[in-house]
Amino acid sequence: MLPMNRILPVLCCLLTAESMADDPLPSWNERAAKAAIVRFVERVTNRDSPEYVEPSRRIAVFDNDGTLWSEQPAYFQAMFVFDRIRQMAPDHPEWKEQLPYSAVLKGDMKTALEGGESALFKMVMATHAGMTTEEFDTSVRQWIETARHPKTGKLYTEMVFQPMLELLALLKANDFRVYIVSGGGVDFMRVFSERVYGIPPEQVIGSRVRASYEIRNGQPVIIRLPEMAFIDDKAGKPLGIHEHIGRRPIFAAGNSDGDFQMLEWTTSTDGPHFGLIIHHTDSEREFAYDRKSHIGQLNKALDEASQRKWQLVDMKNDWKIIYPWSSQ
Amino acid sequence: MLPMNRILPVLCCLLTAESMADDPLPSWNERAAKAAIVRFVERVTNRDSPEYVEPSRRIAVFDNDGTLWSEQPAYFQAMFVFDRIRQMAPDHPEWKEQLPYSAVLKGDMKTALEGGESALFKMVMATHAGMTTEEFDTSVRQWIETARHPKTGKLYTEMVFQPMLELLALLKANDFRVYIVSGGGVDFMRVFSERVYGIPPEQVIGSRVRASYEIRNGQPVIIRLPEMAFIDDKAGKPLGIHEHIGRRPIFAAGNSDGDFQMLEWTTSTDGPHFGLIIHHTDSEREFAYDRKSHIGQLNKALDEASQRKWQLVDMKNDWKIIYPWSSQ
Repeated sequence: MLPMNRILPVLCCLLTAESMADDPLPSWNERAAKAAIVRFVERVTNRDSPEYVEPSRRIAVFDNDGTLWSEQPAYFQAMFVFDRIRQMAPDHPEWKEQLPYSAVLKGDMKTALEGGESALFKMVMATHAGMTTEEFDTSVRQWIETARHPKTGKLYTEMVFQPMLELLALLKANDFRVYIVSGGGVDFMRVFSERVYGIPPEQVIGSRVRASYEIRNGQPVIIRLPEMAFIDDKAGKPLGIHEHIGRRPIFAAGNSDGDFQMLEWTTSTDGPHFGLIIHHTDSEREFAYDRKSHIGQLNKALDEASQRKWQLVDMKNDWKIIYPWSSQ
Repeated sequence: MLPMNRILPVLCCLLTAESMADDPLPSWNERAAKAAIVRFVERVTNRDSPEYVEPSRRIAVFDNDGTLWSEQPAYFQAMFVFDRIRQMAPDHPEWKEQLPYSAVLKGDMKTALEGGESALFKMVMATHAGMTTEEFDTSVRQWIETARHPKTGKLYTEMVFQPMLELLALLKANDFRVYIVSGGGVDFMRVFSERVYGIPPEQVIGSRVRASYEIRNGQPVIIRLPEMAFIDDKAGKPLGIHEHIGRRPIFAAGNSDGDFQMLEWTTSTDGPHFGLIIHHTDSEREFAYDRKSHIGQLNKALDEASQRKWQLVDMKNDWKIIYPWSSQ
């Protein structure tokens, strides 16, 4: 017979494994949001339910910035843009006198971002174009493996929300095909989406620059051009979904008014559907912002969530932990 | 003991099932093309092979017109366009005097198609736009379920190549994700791709019109606009692949110079890759055409196939049967 000190760890291990299996969302508190998600997944996967959905139609779409990972103090891709500007500055002496580049070089992020999206796109164009897709991949990969978040000191890929990783896993375990649908650059996100979220490149929809197919040194390459081809935000999200997937999702999650139309498109059907909004309410463990934020503004969608039966997630109260590395 | 007349059918059934399992490509003759395909699939799926490819990287791309189904005497989508023009003609009295519409209404397909792609796109715009995506789906569905091929009298969806259905099944059974990458309209093909090829809508890449997201009668809709947004042909094919999939395929199949760049992009790597060209050589059972055809012209790709190690399929000699319903 095994001594008790050998049995106990085994028992504990079994118990933990079992409670994990029982509870697919262990980082979610037992509140309305968790119950609604679990109930929805049960309804659409139970063959005896009137709301059963064939696996091929189980499409779920997730915004990325602010929904799957943090987006403060600036979109992480903007941080990449800033680092690229610093890196490329020696070849661009004119940037010292030219906004928004000069502000970036002085470390004045606030001024750099004052021009809003158009300033950001300008910087994206200057730093993300004129190279092959493979060169761009390499530059993103090097950055994402080393750059650190200014507040937490963590890698950006560690700034993902543990409760959302559990939600992605729950949906995938129930034969959902999960897509990212983000205003971020598609080729930026594809570098790490599979490793970090388990979402393969072909299930990432995002903004993109124009591209051209060319032969260089006898080899075909795809060149990124300094011109936006598609902005996957607001009404662009349902259009991107239609273009890429060709059918309407039954589950959508976002955190800002930029996700309004994606939520609207997903939930305006007679069939089963689920809309989820992450509300950033936790100034201590993450960031608190909504109606007046310069990033991820949540205003109209917050007003209409209740009437449209979109499930709000109150990060402070619904989530036991925020990041995989944070303790409860 | 069972009487012989009960045993024989069972035995036959078993034998057939077994030979099917042994031979994943029963409609292919035992020649170089079949051997090369089977060898490639074995190499990339055998974990002990130096050319083993992880399942997530097993991406295969197939042209549609002339590769998965016939494309003569005109692209089947052009036949749909002609039928739409006839159907819509009462509301467009001006078409009687206006090329290419007048030619279509007179049944003079040759003149209707003389304007080449630009005339075809003009007709596509006139007949495929100004409606919601759902209305368009319905019109394609009604047509594809009833319209018949002028030569064979079969439904267009019966004009698919049995040997290619077997190839799709072989790749899927070996964890390839199979995409259609076609100059045809993406929303046209998506209506039947899953039923006919087992390829879901999200794995169809094609040409598309611009679209807008609008609210009509309180419901969100996607409206098709009369403007081409993307032409998925020639250099457009690798660009469409990059945009949609975000990684390079390892298997590509086409039948015309419109597929040249897709084949080039797929096969210009150090890793394992396979390029396949369907050569229409069978004037009796299908159609024979290549260098001088007005549709599906195969010229440059035919010249370079050998040097680029693209496997040619000689339909007449490589395929036992052409269509699922044709006898050997």
